[in-house]
Amino acid sequence: MKKLAIGVDIGGINTAFGLVDENGDLYAESVISTKKYPYVDDYPAYVEDLCDSMKALSQSVSFDYELMGIGIGAPNANYHKGTIETPANLWRFKETDADRTPERRIFHLAEDIARRFDGTKVLVTNDANAATIGEMIYGNAKGMKDFIMITLGTGLGSGFVSNGEMIYGHDGFAGEFGHVIVERNGRECGCGRRGCLETYVSATGIKRTAFELMAKMNAPSKLRDIAFSDLDASMISAAAEQGDAIAKEAFRFTGEMLGRALADVVTVTSPEAIFLFGGLSKAGKLIFEPTQWYMEENMLFVFKNKVKLLPSGIQGKNAAILGASALIWQDTK
Amino acid sequence: MKKLAIGVDIGGINTAFGLVDENGDLYAESVISTKKYPYVDDYPAYVEDLCDSMKALSQSVSFDYELMGIGIGAPNANYHKGTIETPANLWRFKETDADRTPERRIFHLAEDIARRFDGTKVLVTNDANAATIGEMIYGNAKGMKDFIMITLGTGLGSGFVSNGEMIYGHDGFAGEFGHVIVERNGRECGCGRRGCLETYVSATGIKRTAFELMAKMNAPSKLRDIAFSDLDASMISAAAEQGDAIAKEAFRFTGEMLGRALADVVTVTSPEAIFLFGGLSKAGKLIFEPTQWYMEENMLFVFKNKVKLLPSGIQGKNAAILGASALIWQDTK
Repeated sequence: MKKLAIGVDIGGINTAFGLVDENGDLYAESVISTKKYPYVDDYPAYVEDLCDSMKALSQSVSFDYELMGIGIGAPNANYHKGTIETPANLWRFKETDADRTPERRIFHLAEDIARRFDGTKVLVTNDANAATIGEMIYGNAKGMKDFIMITLGTGLGSGFVSNGEMIYGHDGFAGEFGHVIVERNGRECGCGRRGCLETYVSATGIKRTAFELMAKMNAPSKLRDIAFSDLDASMISAAAEQGDAIAKEAFRFTGEMLGRALADVVTVTSPEAIFLFGGLSKAGKLIFEPTQWYMEENMLFVFKNKVKLLPSGIQGKNAAILGASALIWQDTK
Repeated sequence: MKKLAIGVDIGGINTAFGLVDENGDLYAESVISTKKYPYVDDYPAYVEDLCDSMKALSQSVSFDYELMGIGIGAPNANYHKGTIETPANLWRFKETDADRTPERRIFHLAEDIARRFDGTKVLVTNDANAATIGEMIYGNAKGMKDFIMITLGTGLGSGFVSNGEMIYGHDGFAGEFGHVIVERNGRECGCGRRGCLETYVSATGIKRTAFELMAKMNAPSKLRDIAFSDLDASMISAAAEQGDAIAKEAFRFTGEMLGRALADVVTVTSPEAIFLFGGLSKAGKLIFEPTQWYMEENMLFVFKNKVKLLPSGIQGKNAAILGASALIWQDTK
């Protein structure tokens, strides 16, 4: 009988999910609103809604199959415990909540879903780890035992695979490479510290860089007509492709910061390849070329010209669902 | 029947080796000169000498046992290939050597020894990785699945364990944390680059720091009477214990550099503990206190107050032999 897994991608706005086989083929997909359940007290109703919708989805395909499990990618997810712990943008406290102990925002999602699915295996991990496992099962990291995944979105996520296994770390939260400090007393980061890699290398990071460069350089630029709040990374990438000097320099600088940081982390895990995934990585040569150059320029001699810098093989609108479903196949290996 | 392994520690001056059981008890030990065999052409004679001496050692114990294998710790060792590759201080080219292709300095040590020991299992890895596995098998990391070992000697070595396994990386050379760049355009490093962690955090690093501080500060200090070539880390540690302001500041600064670097690398592998091993770590509070303080001060919130900073449990004169022998027990697990 065919074997399928459900992959679930929990975002702040929507939760998307789909039925996926071991080859990464998607048989059915659906979506519910996450935003409809903004507060701690809404969490049980969210779980109810998600489970009902997943059951409807699982009955929507016309052939018999075995459901192998449910894999979930979500912010602040703890693989070991199956929890989502104090996520910034999910199930927040209300202004009027008297009890605001952080423990109330540790959500036992895996357990809560498994209960409604007769004990089906439910695994959760953060979005970047899910993308990493997706790359290993369906993507360009097939057969690789040691690689690094860098996901470039609003922030910078990462996943590390060594000896063929995901590094979750002792507490289940490993792979926060976006929070390596690359510039002492550098840019303010959402984490409360300064100079984290993701304040330079991410969609938000390159926008901050573009604004810094507009102050520093005199070159004319289309970007000068756009307010900070209106600018996004794709505009910078479009401008760079048209030869805009500031946009081009913003990409070069972003690649420099990423390349240097990658040269450093290569000394720790010595990967076969590093994959770039997500928004900024779609800028292609604009981001790959300077990253590669600065990575090699700063590489310790033993690692020089050994580590491949590659685009992810699971790009596309369903990447997050695929990545989450891959948790199940990775576990049954 | 009792099971024993031979642990071999190859240094630039001597090669020490011993017979060790699974509990880390040493039954016999011996040593040969490495220095006697300085050149590429001397390598076969070195292997001969080492094998003869190991055979003599293995016959020197009075009870019957099974020899489970030979574990070797050596600079530039490649675990995957069983080789020692272009080591700086071993089996060098002569001035008069016409053929200086680097390939001639890739030594297939594991194979060459196994041949003389009837195919006994021979494993090699670098000194820091050997110490790491020693910590896991005999020391304070027993039962830990995720930890980091930092070895503080002339340089800074490291070993990373995740999911209960040593991270060797794709090419077998992972764990070169001493060469993470912590100061752009910083101190010159033996690797040819600048600002590597080990130029600050190591016996040599703290000496460089002490000299920088003698230039920067006006405080009187015993260290001002000692030439650069004569100063060693133990003198700085003795001075610090007597309240010498420059020596104390040198330790604080060393701890700051190490603590910051550890806070960064914790984001990658999220270890349960970090162990400090070797020379500088014996300075105790002098190095542990500032390292711990700066590590926590710079830690990403999710990892704060979670990671233990601990002294190695396999210190002492036989630590390197024990570490190397542990390779065999780790492999038969």
